[in-house]
Amino acid sequence: MTELSSGALRVREALGATAAIWAGPDNGFTVKPQPLPRLMPGEVLVRVELATICGSDLHTIAGDRPTPLPTVLGHEAVGTVEAVGSAAYTVYGKPLLPGQRITWTIGTSCGSCRRCQRGVPQKCEGVRKYGHEAITDAWRLNGGFATHCHLVAGTGLMPVPASLPAEVAAPANCATATVVCAARRAELTAGDSVAVIGCGMLGLTAVAFARDLGAEHVIACDVDAGRRDLALKFGATVACSPGDLEAAAKDLGADVVFELSGNSLAVQSALDIVGLDGRVALVGSVSPGPKVSFEPNAFVRNLSHVIGSHNYTVHDLAEAVDFLMRTPKQDLFAALVPASFPLSDIDAAVAMARTGTAPRIAVRMD
Amino acid sequence: MTELSSGALRVREALGATAAIWAGPDNGFTVKPQPLPRLMPGEVLVRVELATICGSDLHTIAGDRPTPLPTVLGHEAVGTVEAVGSAAYTVYGKPLLPGQRITWTIGTSCGSCRRCQRGVPQKCEGVRKYGHEAITDAWRLNGGFATHCHLVAGTGLMPVPASLPAEVAAPANCATATVVCAARRAELTAGDSVAVIGCGMLGLTAVAFARDLGAEHVIACDVDAGRRDLALKFGATVACSPGDLEAAAKDLGADVVFELSGNSLAVQSALDIVGLDGRVALVGSVSPGPKVSFEPNAFVRNLSHVIGSHNYTVHDLAEAVDFLMRTPKQDLFAALVPASFPLSDIDAAVAMARTGTAPRIAVRMD
Repeated sequence: MTELSSGALRVREALGATAAIWAGPDNGFTVKPQPLPRLMPGEVLVRVELATICGSDLHTIAGDRPTPLPTVLGHEAVGTVEAVGSAAYTVYGKPLLPGQRITWTIGTSCGSCRRCQRGVPQKCEGVRKYGHEAITDAWRLNGGFATHCHLVAGTGLMPVPASLPAEVAAPANCATATVVCAARRAELTAGDSVAVIGCGMLGLTAVAFARDLGAEHVIACDVDAGRRDLALKFGATVACSPGDLEAAAKDLGADVVFELSGNSLAVQSALDIVGLDGRVALVGSVSPGPKVSFEPNAFVRNLSHVIGSHNYTVHDLAEAVDFLMRTPKQDLFAALVPASFPLSDIDAAVAMARTGTAPRIAVRMD
Repeated sequence: MTELSSGALRVREALGATAAIWAGPDNGFTVKPQPLPRLMPGEVLVRVELATICGSDLHTIAGDRPTPLPTVLGHEAVGTVEAVGSAAYTVYGKPLLPGQRITWTIGTSCGSCRRCQRGVPQKCEGVRKYGHEAITDAWRLNGGFATHCHLVAGTGLMPVPASLPAEVAAPANCATATVVCAARRAELTAGDSVAVIGCGMLGLTAVAFARDLGAEHVIACDVDAGRRDLALKFGATVACSPGDLEAAAKDLGADVVFELSGNSLAVQSALDIVGLDGRVALVGSVSPGPKVSFEPNAFVRNLSHVIGSHNYTVHDLAEAVDFLMRTPKQDLFAALVPASFPLSDIDAAVAMARTGTAPRIAVRMD
């Protein structure tokens, strides 16, 4: 068992960790003990409170996309700092202290490569992503589905107030921050008319966040009637099925269109409905799919923008947590995670998540 | 003959105007006298010094795109204020005075409709464009190919220093301002690597303007070897044919790609070569053409942006004139307009322009 760093002044009696080790679609999860790490400067040991199962975890588990093995899946998580190597700081530049409740960026960034310097640290040339890397001797606890997570240097660290329910906080570092980043890149502004295509976790978040930023109209579009009803509760001013989207956009405008479904027909529709000088934020397309097309002359004369957005920066994560703190819809957000399972029952948690009946299912570490 | 407004304090002995009236591809130009207007508040009578023949004039003359008839073509122009209705102001908010040398926006904007309020005055709901409207009794001198131009309220008015050669100043209000607007929308920043596809008037301007803004590399791409050589003189760091563009962009980067040719294969190429978080400014596609396509997943993960840009604002026009004043390449810009013809020889001017041997041919009114 590895020793804790001398920086861990207020270390709890944690003699070891437990992780759900995933060995691929054929071999599944094995929940087993793992040694705790010796922390290097800038590193942090977090005792995970709760992690939610993201759609990308389900894609990996289903074998739809390859990942290095064996690994600890899970990246949407919240927890409490158990030990800190020297020189770890929060997004606000304050020293991180044991006992602080935090969430963290899905990936690391070095801060010095050209990509980091140019404002896209999520594409850092040396990026390492939680829930996406193979276990090594130096980095065993590298995902959320474990009692502890070993945060390496370059991870963005965001304090989470104790009053924010864990179910609401856990998706902040994936779903919420991704929406915040896309809204920033698409320059969503008070008074805009907004269309949101796809009303899962990201879509419902986008509806509420757009209203929070002062969007005048928010059209929520989904094939599923239950999701459309939910979108209205999250603040959509109109909810419609894909067949009615064009008419709704014509009627109310579409200054910003969030495409969160990843469906290529929906991407095509987003390009077709965007208003004059309007911005299409493409977010949902994260696995290879059919091409979509547009006519350049119409695009130029409409002053259209199409903006790809993937992941986010630590400042987007900070805004995500701030938004979740200030939204009057915290109860609705909490209800998007209707069930949680202990880590030892991760197979049951995944099975329930795969039914798709709820946007998120949680894994609890206590 | 209509009287001049009482605001025309220093009016020259202008008893009438002469305009090249265009009556469509079958009927051509007739150069004939026109009455001078009675100026309303905010209106301006300009004695045109010189107007250049834009590619869009040639498209209209060739019958490639319809325009209301009869009309006065021409919009790239510079001239001297002859009379001012009450309450006409420059872009800097100063009263416009007779005797001032100016250029003006290609279109009017009301300043109060939703489009004007949202920063796209070029798409004003009530826009009227010089060189694009039918002659009416109230607006006869509505284009550049005339001794006088009648500027109506809502036209952006930009002073032009006496030291700026007319051949350099005239394209400011179309080619130069369009490039400035596209660079602004594409957030071109010092240190960027830039690719310019299509090295005609706009492309050469884009090359020089990108370097002026501090672009580190500028790749100039054109099918024509003569234009590629010219692009190097305008500041391109590399010039290549379309077949070599992808390799050049891979080598040097492509943070901003200007697509100025309007060719759909070039638009496709622009989408394919743009770098991480890079911006494609689509500008050249101003007549209907084949669709182009992209794969959304690759687009999202590359954080790509595609931005349509058409026309410009009066602030872009101001920056265009400022740029033409400060560029050390004024002589090169002047050489892009190698010949000028008197208004009475407009047919000869157009015939030379149609040969395509020079980016611009001018019509002189003196």
